[in-house]
Amino acid sequence: MSRDICIYQEFLTGVHRAKIESAAAQAGFVPHFFAPDQFEEARECLQRCEVLYAHSPDLLRTAPASLKWYCCSYAGVDPYCKDPSVFANPDCMLTNSNSYGVTIAEHVVMVTLMLLRRMPEYGAIVRDREWSNQLPIRSIRDNEFTLLGTGNIGINVAERLRGMGAAQIIGLSRSGRAVPGFDAVSPISRLDEILPSVKILIMSLPGTPETVHILNRDRIALLPRDAYVINVGRGTAIEQKPLIEALNSGRLAGAALDVMDPEPLPPDHPLWEAKNLILTPHVSGNMTLGYTCDVNVEMFCTDLLRYGRGEPLKNLVDRTRGY
Amino acid sequence: MSRDICIYQEFLTGVHRAKIESAAAQAGFVPHFFAPDQFEEARECLQRCEVLYAHSPDLLRTAPASLKWYCCSYAGVDPYCKDPSVFANPDCMLTNSNSYGVTIAEHVVMVTLMLLRRMPEYGAIVRDREWSNQLPIRSIRDNEFTLLGTGNIGINVAERLRGMGAAQIIGLSRSGRAVPGFDAVSPISRLDEILPSVKILIMSLPGTPETVHILNRDRIALLPRDAYVINVGRGTAIEQKPLIEALNSGRLAGAALDVMDPEPLPPDHPLWEAKNLILTPHVSGNMTLGYTCDVNVEMFCTDLLRYGRGEPLKNLVDRTRGY
Repeated sequence: MSRDICIYQEFLTGVHRAKIESAAAQAGFVPHFFAPDQFEEARECLQRCEVLYAHSPDLLRTAPASLKWYCCSYAGVDPYCKDPSVFANPDCMLTNSNSYGVTIAEHVVMVTLMLLRRMPEYGAIVRDREWSNQLPIRSIRDNEFTLLGTGNIGINVAERLRGMGAAQIIGLSRSGRAVPGFDAVSPISRLDEILPSVKILIMSLPGTPETVHILNRDRIALLPRDAYVINVGRGTAIEQKPLIEALNSGRLAGAALDVMDPEPLPPDHPLWEAKNLILTPHVSGNMTLGYTCDVNVEMFCTDLLRYGRGEPLKNLVDRTRGY
Repeated sequence: MSRDICIYQEFLTGVHRAKIESAAAQAGFVPHFFAPDQFEEARECLQRCEVLYAHSPDLLRTAPASLKWYCCSYAGVDPYCKDPSVFANPDCMLTNSNSYGVTIAEHVVMVTLMLLRRMPEYGAIVRDREWSNQLPIRSIRDNEFTLLGTGNIGINVAERLRGMGAAQIIGLSRSGRAVPGFDAVSPISRLDEILPSVKILIMSLPGTPETVHILNRDRIALLPRDAYVINVGRGTAIEQKPLIEALNSGRLAGAALDVMDPEPLPPDHPLWEAKNLILTPHVSGNMTLGYTCDVNVEMFCTDLLRYGRGEPLKNLVDRTRGY
């Protein structure tokens, strides 16, 4: 009897399929591929599968209690941890895919430079067809960075900032454990002490109950006037109303948000018009970069081989902790 | 009798003045400082000076034949080389100030990422308050770069691209001499051979008769459809009309111009409206970054000490060659 894998993904190329087929054969599995418009076919096949590789809570909800492993091709698995009822099998293993480090880090370097080099203002000058070029700018070189989140994204960001001459890179994480590439890592419990000396705050936290509004009104008030805030984690991590007020009043130098709350942002939301804000519609870490897709498939195949051998999965998520 | 230096600069801080005073004293000189609104006072003082540190063809034109050294605080000295009549003394030494490598390289990294990550299009999406995030993007990692110009700017750009995982960095220079940080450097005479395989072309050439329209209509036609062009050297290096046509017709993926011809760009110029073009009003390398100013003063002081000892100047420009 065959052991089956249901694969419901939009980004797979022929090369990706071949890689998955080869890993599946080696692990003793048969893969079944479905495109985004084949939800019904995928649902039907899923009923006899023990593994699902997708990023669809809707499809997962239709899975039988015999599903043993759900490999989510996203990094953020908060929708699956907040609501355990999406799993018919309470012991179903959940893995996530941290394949977004490089693309998100490149996004962070881009918006960091755009903020330091006053691109929101220069963008307006150019739109008005004016010629003015004397705004004081700042540099990554010799600058100091505070990274709230020291996971895969934080490590990739730190590496790039260091390569461009950053003088100091401080990390903040739940544990405060040392991480290569950081000058120091503190526990998040020390956040209030650290905020008053922040120059550029880069947030890449997962969406968990502890991270909701972690940058709240009081903490935004602790930031220096010339600080910049960048968020590529979850929109819920920032209390948006006081952030907008701080930007519009000049109490904060600028911000770049790739994530917000809610998404999509409604057309009448005040974030669209906030001053010195670079908004992007959650583009930093999706599957639009080939490299990201390659790594994603590689991570699934590595864990599939481990699964076949009965070894612990590398990208296993603690479903109660949320990451 | 004192030997005098006329200094006419807008960017000097107290620390900079103190550094210059100390170097001048050591070299046996007396410095005289003038702000931008003191042109007349500077002109008067200049009559008895043997050194001028400024970036003003107008002031230089008023200098006596006894001026021995003009230290220009800009990197681009084409206005002084094209028109030798700005020097009353035909043997006056000219030095330039390549203090802009870091700030221009950061600009290049920024616009490279903005092009690869489709920011002109995402900017328009956000301005329309729409939510769309599936444009295919590209990465610096594993990508290939062609740098037309391997001087101070090119070297700083190459270093940063390499730090972000660039797979291949090819340089093009007049001599084709090997430069550290480049995988290969070819003479510019091979440009036509190289253009058809360009992915991202980064131009940082000085303004000389040979570089005018070096990227002309025929050469723009040699570029692949998915190529990007970045120019931070001189606007005259690109034939603008065919570039605009190529951008608007989709014959070229995009461009980022910090320099153009003429500057300021007239309000009715078609460049303002070209598709997938990131325009900045010559901001990449001016004196708005503290680090640039620090290096600029340091370069002047180093050469001042050499000048005092009668040694050859480090940043001497060949006035006939233009750089």
